[in-house]
Amino acid sequence: MIYLDNSATTKTDADVVKVMADVMTNVYGNPSSLHGLGVKAERLIEQARKIMAQELGVSPQEIIFTSGGTEANNMAIKGVADAYQQRGMHIITTEIEHPSVYDVYKQLEQRGWRVTILPVDHVGRVRPEMVEQALTEETVLVSIMHVNNEIGTVQPIAEIGRRLKNYPKVLFHVDAVQSFAKYPIQPEQWGIDLLSVSGHKFHGPKGIGCLYMRRNLMLTPLLAGGGQEQGLRSGTQNVPGIVGLAKATVLAGKQREAFLDRCQAWKEWLIERITTEIGEVRVNGDVTRDGGAPYILSFSFPGLKAEVIVHALEQEQVVVSSKSACSSKKELPSRVLKAIGLGDEAAIGSIRISMGFMTTEEEVRRSADALLKVIPSLQQVIKVRKR
Amino acid sequence: MIYLDNSATTKTDADVVKVMADVMTNVYGNPSSLHGLGVKAERLIEQARKIMAQELGVSPQEIIFTSGGTEANNMAIKGVADAYQQRGMHIITTEIEHPSVYDVYKQLEQRGWRVTILPVDHVGRVRPEMVEQALTEETVLVSIMHVNNEIGTVQPIAEIGRRLKNYPKVLFHVDAVQSFAKYPIQPEQWGIDLLSVSGHKFHGPKGIGCLYMRRNLMLTPLLAGGGQEQGLRSGTQNVPGIVGLAKATVLAGKQREAFLDRCQAWKEWLIERITTEIGEVRVNGDVTRDGGAPYILSFSFPGLKAEVIVHALEQEQVVVSSKSACSSKKELPSRVLKAIGLGDEAAIGSIRISMGFMTTEEEVRRSADALLKVIPSLQQVIKVRKR
Ligand SMILES: Cc1ncc(COP(=O)(O)O)c(C=O)c1O
Ligand SMILES: Cc1ncc(COP(=O)(O)O)c(C=O)c1O
Repeated sequence: MIYLDNSATTKTDADVVKVMADVMTNVYGNPSSLHGLGVKAERLIEQARKIMAQELGVSPQEIIFTSGGTEANNMAIKGVADAYQQRGMHIITTEIEHPSVYDVYKQLEQRGWRVTILPVDHVGRVRPEMVEQALTEETVLVSIMHVNNEIGTVQPIAEIGRRLKNYPKVLFHVDAVQSFAKYPIQPEQWGIDLLSVSGHKFHGPKGIGCLYMRRNLMLTPLLAGGGQEQGLRSGTQNVPGIVGLAKATVLAGKQREAFLDRCQAWKEWLIERITTEIGEVRVNGDVTRDGGAPYILSFSFPGLKAEVIVHALEQEQVVVSSKSACSSKKELPSRVLKAIGLGDEAAIGSIRISMGFMTTEEEVRRSADALLKVIPSLQQVIKVRKR
Repeated sequence: MIYLDNSATTKTDADVVKVMADVMTNVYGNPSSLHGLGVKAERLIEQARKIMAQELGVSPQEIIFTSGGTEANNMAIKGVADAYQQRGMHIITTEIEHPSVYDVYKQLEQRGWRVTILPVDHVGRVRPEMVEQALTEETVLVSIMHVNNEIGTVQPIAEIGRRLKNYPKVLFHVDAVQSFAKYPIQPEQWGIDLLSVSGHKFHGPKGIGCLYMRRNLMLTPLLAGGGQEQGLRSGTQNVPGIVGLAKATVLAGKQREAFLDRCQAWKEWLIERITTEIGEVRVNGDVTRDGGAPYILSFSFPGLKAEVIVHALEQEQVVVSSKSACSSKKELPSRVLKAIGLGDEAAIGSIRISMGFMTTEEEVRRSADALLKVIPSLQQVIKVRKR
């Protein structure tokens, strides 16, 4: 089986599984306990916190462990909204955010917040000057994702952050779930105040993530209780998950450059091959090296249905996805694809191919072969039906 | 090392570690994905959901997986408070709840809720008639824990639930983190609407738990996003954690009766031995079989400091705790122990011994020996100092 749905989730690295099993077996103490077993567990957490901080070039106390990217996003946005609402009740975001950001804004709107949703261009990019233009006296937070999970577009985060530095009362949150560990990210230099990370997107564990939160910010916790994580995220810490997250981060750091290089070559080769041999196809997102994540590819085959393509490819042992995992069970055409100008037909016929650290050249070749076998024959069926 | 801090957390069962490693390695798909690997992951979750539902005698769709007990408590209380606030803004709870309940009420008070905190008697029990008397037209929720984490008192949940059935507009939430899997619990018969569970308290994984929520209730989600868990708890599900939680539940079911029996015998034997041989000692909580959890023992040694006892016992290879793990790093005397009438001195000198499925008779005996060695010599030091 060729797994090309790494933006939905990744296979947990064998070394990550190993350290987690080891922690569960040997360092099972509660990190809040005073005794040796508790202290050992706490040390593991603090080591992991250092690793996460180092990856981002920030201080360990600026890292808060969460149960994943969704919690990090909800916590950042709701926590800041609640803590700073005296400043104003206006928030700025984009049309192509993940539901764990986008739907949080829907919740906030019901509580009286005003939300400006910025449009994106035809490759899915937001214009930094538009962010600046949307600021008002009441703006508390700007939230923009780094790499889009459906089409891979890389937002000009550093440029937006640079502009926002002129507005010190406006906080900047970045959903980096699809980019963390694959791209080097520097919150301080880029002007980021809050940044969300999820372990299972880069061969780490499911159910763990973290939030970077710049020091001296206020945040109303989502989870009250024992006061863990500096009182910002109560609950007995998931020690094996935290250790696994840090392990995956270390492993990623060693290979990301080579990974990005080879994915870019594969991406270009795939696009070349598919667009040459298949007439009716559209490539979504930005295909340049700087503008699009090399590990995410989105193709639209107007007239076809994504689910049908996904299942046909699966018959060929190739696993891809129709848009994002989170929304793949809903029947609606993707909000993200519509935001970049696709009509319903093209949006419904879109598949995502996403590569991970374990993807090989051989797999990419074989998946191209499978696509070139499956798509034309499906298109043929449609044409016959239409006659 | 003799680990007697099982109420803080437990050693993950080797079989649980095994299934989790297996899931991480082989069924790593995103349960929301349409392809086979996603479907496999989803099936594992639905199997696990059935197991959790069976344990409680409820329907699988009434189980919502969370990142642990703290999240289940926060989600239940805040979610119901938000969804039902038109009915009124009054909540009833007790003085001895875990911080993940108690501190949520503090947050709600700041948002304008009125909270009635019921007192408990000298063994830590709340009187069902007092719950009923505290009800008002505005009462939306009653939240009372099943087994107390510091002193083991078992609350008369079924009796309270029976009374609350006469007030169908009042919801009943039970924090069963310390009792689930150890006691059979029947939410429907007992009149419980919401019930919180945490995996790591019964040899399951850390970072996973669930909330039972009776069907047809409304709840505003804490985490918005991809719409997992019927839209009530978004976020990519922690598949290995969920499978591990269910595995631990199955394992617990097979042994809980024998476990409760042997713990009761050990508890009685320990109390007998400690109180006979040490003069200045107080046993906290209810020591009867029905009134107190057999696996939790709380002793107060007035004049001594809990941390000193904990460290001295650790020298003897016996691991116990000063009050609960969550609050053991805070210097304040336990709120729970003060609620049952202990003065500061007794509260500060209190330790908790908590047994798990892996505890053996030999370990209990050796821990008694260690206590009988350590306590008198510490008491001697104090006496000498006082002279
Ligand atoms: C961009 C983005 N943000 C947030 C999330 C949510 O993260 P998690 O699955 O850890 O809840 C995802 C993936 O599901 C994502 O792709
Ligand atoms: C009674 C009680 N409720 C809730 C919790 C919180 O559960 P968790 O540690 O899974 O967040 C605990 C333990 O920490 C507990 O003992």
